[in-house]
Amino acid sequence: MNVLLVFAHPEPRSLNGALRDIAVAELKDQGHEVRVSDLYAQGWKSEIDRADFPQLPDDARLNVAAASGEAFKAGALTDDVKAEQQKLLWADAVILQFPLWWFTMPAILKGWVDRVYSYGFAYGVGEHSDKRWGDRYGEGVFAGKRAMLIVTTGGWEEHYSERGINGPIDDLLFPINHGVLFYPGFDVLPSFVIHRVSRLDEAGFAAVATRLRERMQTLFTTKPIPYRRQNHGDYAIPTMQLRPGLGDPGARGFALHIDAA
Amino acid sequence: MNVLLVFAHPEPRSLNGALRDIAVAELKDQGHEVRVSDLYAQGWKSEIDRADFPQLPDDARLNVAAASGEAFKAGALTDDVKAEQQKLLWADAVILQFPLWWFTMPAILKGWVDRVYSYGFAYGVGEHSDKRWGDRYGEGVFAGKRAMLIVTTGGWEEHYSERGINGPIDDLLFPINHGVLFYPGFDVLPSFVIHRVSRLDEAGFAAVATRLRERMQTLFTTKPIPYRRQNHGDYAIPTMQLRPGLGDPGARGFALHIDAA
Repeated sequence: MNVLLVFAHPEPRSLNGALRDIAVAELKDQGHEVRVSDLYAQGWKSEIDRADFPQLPDDARLNVAAASGEAFKAGALTDDVKAEQQKLLWADAVILQFPLWWFTMPAILKGWVDRVYSYGFAYGVGEHSDKRWGDRYGEGVFAGKRAMLIVTTGGWEEHYSERGINGPIDDLLFPINHGVLFYPGFDVLPSFVIHRVSRLDEAGFAAVATRLRERMQTLFTTKPIPYRRQNHGDYAIPTMQLRPGLGDPGARGFALHIDAA
Repeated sequence: MNVLLVFAHPEPRSLNGALRDIAVAELKDQGHEVRVSDLYAQGWKSEIDRADFPQLPDDARLNVAAASGEAFKAGALTDDVKAEQQKLLWADAVILQFPLWWFTMPAILKGWVDRVYSYGFAYGVGEHSDKRWGDRYGEGVFAGKRAMLIVTTGGWEEHYSERGINGPIDDLLFPINHGVLFYPGFDVLPSFVIHRVSRLDEAGFAAVATRLRERMQTLFTTKPIPYRRQNHGDYAIPTMQLRPGLGDPGARGFALHIDAA
């Protein structure tokens, strides 16, 4: 199978760099083809701006969604964006690897999402009407592909637990797992999270490496997070509210959108 | 009072640009001093990398937190970062204004957080031991200041409601409100959110403008979100778990960290 790993750390000689190398080696050992988008090494441009849309007349107002849709349709996106889109189409599984900075991804990876996820490619796909609100949340360009996060944090696991002060890590990652990965159709696997990385000693690293290799071995068999699909009856259309009676009566917020049954 | 508005939209002739102008004008009418950090106009660099730490030897491994802390302590940060830190120290209230892209802020604003929130300035502040885990979540460099978000979305308000498919907007913004603003000490006001902006007609815009002016008039009187403070007894130290018995028995996830009482 084909695996794309998008790597967003500025230092190759970091724990993140070491974990990336372990993941890539293990995937290759499993017989997979692996490509890495090393955003810092590529000099990735993070800001979506007029330069993303060379066709846009100089005096035209920049409407990002409209310009993105027109450029995508016309094949007029910049080469760096086109190359990433081709890698995504090539991949059977996509891994986003990053250090958790301020409870989400680094700017350079957010910029990869902002720029590569064009209108007509990753959003604004399919019929939008009173009967249907697009191919998203379980459908879309990446349907049939898998994706997962590899995330490092400096904080304690307890701080990110169900009652921990930072909020539960799965809730902090929901806007990415559900909003960035599930939205355009990926099956999303549970995240691989390593906490308190600055205190990781040799034995701790070995244990993490073992767990990571196991996750890479099961990349195509691990059960995805059972997010509810938009267009399969759970949501009222077009308001997209979860239908009454669905969801654990005690559930609130993000947990409602996982079908525990 | 002094107000800093950090603006993250690439097009001044956008709805966001119009709302910014309304907010700034209203704040000035109220007698406040206003400064705007227009990140796109400033050509803000989004990626934290070696160039952020000119003192770092060429052959040294880049550890972002360590390099950030050393550069902050030595006054060796880059001028663009220092200027933003000075503006934050000058401000009595800070407003972050942005379009919601992929359920969080645009890369350029994330890069402002990543680069301006130095170690020793916005995190890694105060004693870290078994007895205390830093000055954060209610304490820190911005204690006594207020902050709020102005956010535009393309989606329907219902899609972002309690049972809406995107997840509740307040939960989506929690990593920013709680993790970026409350963490270094800001009192965080409820966000000002405008939905479905591409469909806003003249009457709709006038109504939004009126609501925004009202929010600017009450910037220094609106009651902050009652997030629980880390070092005032609600959390066990050092695990930072909310003590048993605190929080609505039905509450899960982020809601636990708001003191409803």
